[in-house]
Amino acid sequence: MSSDASTVPAKTPVTLREVAAAAGVSVATASKALNGQGRMTAETRERIRDVAQRLGFRPNSLAQSLLRRRSFTVGLLTNDTYGRFSLPLMAGVSDALVDNGVSVFLCNVEDDQRLGQLHVEAMLDKRVDGIIATGKRIDRHLPVDLSDLRVPVVYAFTQPDPGAVGLVSDDAGGARLAVEHFCRLGRRRIAHVTGPAGFEVVHTRADAYRAVLQENNLAVSEPLLGAWSEAWGHEAVGRLFGKAGREGWPDAIFCGNDQIARGVIDALRERGIRVPDDVGVIGFDNWEIVAEATRPPLTSVDMNLATLGREAGLALLSLVGGQKAAPGIRKLPCRLVVRQSCGRPPGG
Amino acid sequence: MSSDASTVPAKTPVTLREVAAAAGVSVATASKALNGQGRMTAETRERIRDVAQRLGFRPNSLAQSLLRRRSFTVGLLTNDTYGRFSLPLMAGVSDALVDNGVSVFLCNVEDDQRLGQLHVEAMLDKRVDGIIATGKRIDRHLPVDLSDLRVPVVYAFTQPDPGAVGLVSDDAGGARLAVEHFCRLGRRRIAHVTGPAGFEVVHTRADAYRAVLQENNLAVSEPLLGAWSEAWGHEAVGRLFGKAGREGWPDAIFCGNDQIARGVIDALRERGIRVPDDVGVIGFDNWEIVAEATRPPLTSVDMNLATLGREAGLALLSLVGGQKAAPGIRKLPCRLVVRQSCGRPPGG
Repeated sequence: MSSDASTVPAKTPVTLREVAAAAGVSVATASKALNGQGRMTAETRERIRDVAQRLGFRPNSLAQSLLRRRSFTVGLLTNDTYGRFSLPLMAGVSDALVDNGVSVFLCNVEDDQRLGQLHVEAMLDKRVDGIIATGKRIDRHLPVDLSDLRVPVVYAFTQPDPGAVGLVSDDAGGARLAVEHFCRLGRRRIAHVTGPAGFEVVHTRADAYRAVLQENNLAVSEPLLGAWSEAWGHEAVGRLFGKAGREGWPDAIFCGNDQIARGVIDALRERGIRVPDDVGVIGFDNWEIVAEATRPPLTSVDMNLATLGREAGLALLSLVGGQKAAPGIRKLPCRLVVRQSCGRPPGG
Repeated sequence: MSSDASTVPAKTPVTLREVAAAAGVSVATASKALNGQGRMTAETRERIRDVAQRLGFRPNSLAQSLLRRRSFTVGLLTNDTYGRFSLPLMAGVSDALVDNGVSVFLCNVEDDQRLGQLHVEAMLDKRVDGIIATGKRIDRHLPVDLSDLRVPVVYAFTQPDPGAVGLVSDDAGGARLAVEHFCRLGRRRIAHVTGPAGFEVVHTRADAYRAVLQENNLAVSEPLLGAWSEAWGHEAVGRLFGKAGREGWPDAIFCGNDQIARGVIDALRERGIRVPDDVGVIGFDNWEIVAEATRPPLTSVDMNLATLGREAGLALLSLVGGQKAAPGIRKLPCRLVVRQSCGRPPGG
């Protein structure tokens, strides 16, 4: 290895937020000071510039283009303000924007098209620099037409309009993580218990499940479709383990969400079937409050929704800054959070 | 009964939102039109006024005072953007404000005082008409000083500064609802399993529990303090039912939250003790996804957080409109949501 100073790992770039904090002003004020905009005393402006210089702040092209913008606000539209999926997503969006000195208008369009359009108009009235649309389900459009606005739009975890930029989780990849993990652990009879047929992700994940089993020369048993509930997890265990003959029983169950997995684990315990010794269980969503309370704690696929939100926020800022983005849907990877419900490798 | 037309029940007043929807404009635009403010064509203004007249819209004093304000935006500060308690609360705040044509800036101050002050400055930069502060816990201050701002502040579900307006849930009243319900059902040996001593609500609710038992001449057993978790619910059942002699067992358990209640119900089932036949169980929070999945479904105290948020939103609008409000903490009532876990009255 060279001892040249240039090989010292690069420090994380100083952010506008850090400059603002060091100068004791808001991020928006720091932005304006560095860009020669806004009303403030010459002393204040000079002081903020000194701080920026002292910290080694270098506005990147993103920040530079942001500095040219007028409102430093972005609208966040959702029909699921207070849902389990949109929450981490919105937290990620918000973090990415606030880090760049941009404030967020939160707007719940519910499922009412008229209300949706009114909210979009109100946002445009307030001169937002752009809009992020998020929703309850990857396979549904928001009930609002964002196809012809004068500001850029990014879609996250909801169906984008054709020609728009959308970010979703890679559900097929997430399902592969779970089933491949079971295969590596030596499980041979892997069942899949999942949600209702009306959800696109049910089919995406079931297809990935089948594909992994085939790649591993394992028998594919038809996925059991039901509801996204604990009660369905219970019922599915009755179907899978009701028949006589232990040799026909699965030794692993990949569940379409964590609530189903909770029901499966409870029902197995009530039948005296041990998790993970007799049957391994993996869930989907990594809803921590559920996954950590199952006995044993639940291994689960995490859709990385906060990261997805963060990426959506940065994609919007990039569009606001005048950069072009290829339209279409970008799929972001999931990760497997391993707890105790899936077992250990043979001899491990 | 008189047949006089004046006895016909009054219709719900027409809202600004309905006027805006009928005119096909944003709520802010409708506000401005009716108040002779804002930039718009004379035709648009006239059209909106016609719609308002046709619908019978009567701006109340609240709306009138709002019409004089400049930004129609309010900041919502929280250190718990994506928590289970703040979500329904923020939904309520948002509904109340949006109904009145006011947009909401959402701002997560986390637990960082410096960041908090920066966010408050950014909001003031954006000329918000007022600020609502909400938090994770009733008994904690937000890490930010809002005592000397040029705009009104309302606190909801967090400790207010002295002299400020705060709204919280009536936790003592909520606990009374649960314990009095057990008394009415004829339960005589009522235990209380709750969270850690570091939470003020633990003591508030435990005091109410003791008071109701004394009022009903029932023996008070010392509340069991632990964690807010399912695991603690399991453990507490071990302590309560571990001793020999059925006659010493409780016939009802009031739990400090729904997760504890879930653990209690599961542990009772595993011991072959029937809920509600042998032991009634009531939880706190009415976290529906948990309360509806317990077997049997859980009776629980609901803090009405959406209503609390709504009231906080309206209180802020009233202050923004120049009305005076008595400083201090206002406690809003809880309600008991009865499901199957608490049993029926004797002979019922």
